[in-house]
Amino acid sequence: MGSDQQAIRELIAEWQRATAAGDVDSILPLMAPDVLFLTPGRAPFGRDAFDAGLRSMLQTHRIVSTGEVKEIEVSGDMAYCLSFLEVRVFSLSGGNPMERSGHVVSVLRKQPSGSWQIARDANMLVSSGDA
Amino acid sequence: MGSDQQAIRELIAEWQRATAAGDVDSILPLMAPDVLFLTPGRAPFGRDAFDAGLRSMLQTHRIVSTGEVKEIEVSGDMAYCLSFLEVRVFSLSGGNPMERSGHVVSVLRKQPSGSWQIARDANMLVSSGDA
Repeated sequence: MGSDQQAIRELIAEWQRATAAGDVDSILPLMAPDVLFLTPGRAPFGRDAFDAGLRSMLQTHRIVSTGEVKEIEVSGDMAYCLSFLEVRVFSLSGGNPMERSGHVVSVLRKQPSGSWQIARDANMLVSSGDA
Repeated sequence: MGSDQQAIRELIAEWQRATAAGDVDSILPLMAPDVLFLTPGRAPFGRDAFDAGLRSMLQTHRIVSTGEVKEIEVSGDMAYCLSFLEVRVFSLSGGNPMERSGHVVSVLRKQPSGSWQIARDANMLVSSGDA
């Protein structure tokens, strides 16, 4: 596996670790300043909305996600990654978690420093009962 | 605009034209043999399933889609395209069309011949009433 692919795998693993730990400050540098999150039925949103939404959710919930990276392809300073994610959102007040799963196609850009960032994120997760 | 970007715009325009014309044979060369279509709530599917599904639908329906290409970025032999699509599916027996709209993130690959093909297609369209 190339070093770029390894770096992208580590980025995704770090994203999941930081999400589970509620460590939003460690997630933000993993995305480009102009990142766009694309999801069904919602207008595209960027880093500030992601930041605010996640911090709000983490006040009352804990998020656990497991993912399988299906493929990573790199061409110069661009890459894409196809993953299958399973996300469980636990309310801190108890009860059954909300479960969502599905595929994510992420487009990544390599920075001049050599590190990678997620630039576009197409998220096709649905409630697991619907998938 | 670079020639690669122009070629990708023309690919997308041709895809829409051929879809509206029911000209499936003209769509298939626009996608890579190993293309994967990713949609919410459905397992990824490839060219054969796309082909069969579209031909089946076109026996009883007409599809009209209008799209706005929001961005195209190219790096070497890889590109991505972010579009917003509005699709109306008319039954040949009449009635109101089914309307779907939303964003699509497509990953494209450049062939040795210089032409581009869609390799991964992340489709986030929902019924327009839901968007």
